[in-house]
Amino acid sequence: MSEWRADPVTGQWVIVAGDAPVRLRDFDLDEHPPETDLPCPLCEGHEQVAGHEILAVRENTPTNGPGWQLRVVPNRVPVLRVEAGGDSVRDGLFEHQPGLGAHEVVVESPRHDASWYTMPAPDLGTVLLAWRDRIADLRRDGRMKAALAFKNHGAKAGARLAHPHSQIVAMPRVPPRIDDELRGAERHHLATGHCVFCDLVAQELAAGTRVVAATPTCVALAPYASRAPFEVWLVPRHHAARFEAAPADDIIGLAAALHGVLAQMDAQLGRPAFNAVLHSAPYGAAVDAAFHWHLELVPRVLRATGFDIGTGTAINPVPAEKAARVLRGAAG
Amino acid sequence: MSEWRADPVTGQWVIVAGDAPVRLRDFDLDEHPPETDLPCPLCEGHEQVAGHEILAVRENTPTNGPGWQLRVVPNRVPVLRVEAGGDSVRDGLFEHQPGLGAHEVVVESPRHDASWYTMPAPDLGTVLLAWRDRIADLRRDGRMKAALAFKNHGAKAGARLAHPHSQIVAMPRVPPRIDDELRGAERHHLATGHCVFCDLVAQELAAGTRVVAATPTCVALAPYASRAPFEVWLVPRHHAARFEAAPADDIIGLAAALHGVLAQMDAQLGRPAFNAVLHSAPYGAAVDAAFHWHLELVPRVLRATGFDIGTGTAINPVPAEKAARVLRGAAG
Repeated sequence: MSEWRADPVTGQWVIVAGDAPVRLRDFDLDEHPPETDLPCPLCEGHEQVAGHEILAVRENTPTNGPGWQLRVVPNRVPVLRVEAGGDSVRDGLFEHQPGLGAHEVVVESPRHDASWYTMPAPDLGTVLLAWRDRIADLRRDGRMKAALAFKNHGAKAGARLAHPHSQIVAMPRVPPRIDDELRGAERHHLATGHCVFCDLVAQELAAGTRVVAATPTCVALAPYASRAPFEVWLVPRHHAARFEAAPADDIIGLAAALHGVLAQMDAQLGRPAFNAVLHSAPYGAAVDAAFHWHLELVPRVLRATGFDIGTGTAINPVPAEKAARVLRGAAG
Repeated sequence: MSEWRADPVTGQWVIVAGDAPVRLRDFDLDEHPPETDLPCPLCEGHEQVAGHEILAVRENTPTNGPGWQLRVVPNRVPVLRVEAGGDSVRDGLFEHQPGLGAHEVVVESPRHDASWYTMPAPDLGTVLLAWRDRIADLRRDGRMKAALAFKNHGAKAGARLAHPHSQIVAMPRVPPRIDDELRGAERHHLATGHCVFCDLVAQELAAGTRVVAATPTCVALAPYASRAPFEVWLVPRHHAARFEAAPADDIIGLAAALHGVLAQMDAQLGRPAFNAVLHSAPYGAAVDAAFHWHLELVPRVLRATGFDIGTGTAINPVPAEKAARVLRGAAG
């Protein structure tokens, strides 16, 4: 079983994921493509291997059989489990807690060779709607304080399986990066009475230089203090703190904007590996006026160095204005 | 010129490193070994390319010529510069400041094929003593609030040159990760009157399970809440907040312990890429009783995923006790 552990100096929590035997050959994954000779557990026809479906998009086909567009299943090697109850325990300077949480896999297509870069916008919409439904459902477990939906595309982004999939994790604590955003949004709201993301979208649309794309429902920005080259935030124009409460039209609008930005990344950068991370208000937080859900796309074209690791400060060689210019297809 | 930029939501600072033309071929560096056909700028005989020495360890040989053991030179592509003066400027939600700081390269050996894995302990001591001297010297610039010494070993750890080198950066602000440690250390000191690192070393020596090695001057630990598999902290037994004020004996003791830990990593893991990061008290901080300098070694055997990036929470598949057992050479 995994456990949560608090750093004895900073108090920051880490997930120690289980105690399976250490096999050194499991590491350095990034040297190898994620593809293997083993049958893909996520392909159509392997539903029994992938696991019993929690949610599926299928038309009159039997549950847990073939004939589906999307399935959500429990992660076979979960980093957190809903069964892992128990309080946190102290031992001198150390504090730990059983690895409570939920960890699900969204199998995004029956096709092994599908990809966010090639899926039509409605299929991306199906994925995002499944995220919404699962995040809404996991909220019913009162022990969970936050959920995160994310995708690793490509080995360089940490993907271990080539078959298109994303992941949903629900957690009994608010993660530090979401907490930082939340506090910043609350500071801004207290000072101005406005949502910082709404103000940001307005300022960026007026300036124009960091706008990657703008659709009727969504604005894609190269964030001013981007941590990674060509990072893009997709921010819905309609203010809402919680993705799971967003109307379907906003989510379908996000999918259309995402499809467009991925086409820009494809055309200008050649399908880089990326992480996509959904930031939505933590379940219990009373931040409906201050927070604003959004999707962060982080291309993985540079390695973190000792500077990043030692300081927690990113060094980004591509200013956001240049990233936006490149992605819009203008001269770099 | 580079600049510091504050994230408009979290307030966290990022370094936007210059505005050189974006060349897409410069990215995805990790696919390629850092070795190239170009002459190595750091090799003996190329002193004019590497730059004028700020510090050198040499015996009666002319400054900036061959015949040296170690040289410190300005980084040829600095992310921060001492010439970059100026206050921070606000533009609506955005805040930026010229890229003030210092960025130096420690050329650790005249030999291109030397490596921390093969250098004898006294040569590692020469490197660490150069770090100390440079951090002490950069402190004289009152604009600098903190310095970081770090090393990237291997392309997977972000190294761009194969020639053994490390880097010193001085900064006008305290980086978030150091700040988190400082605050935690101050909380502990306020509550107990003790240094948290001294207490940690005592608890770990008593428990034994996470001790990788112990020498007369230094304890090497797999940290309880390790963020990465096989992460090791080298903590001097003698309490001191500032590396630059440490006695030479403690630094030579650290070099000996480091040499031993690298031999353990070599034997058990096969010379993984790693980052080494020195954590020392920020220049101005009055934390002499609460903080304790140490060196963090982070093997780079796993890729960050969307979970790490989205939450700021690490998932580590190797518990610290197992990492210590493996590194000690016991059965995994």
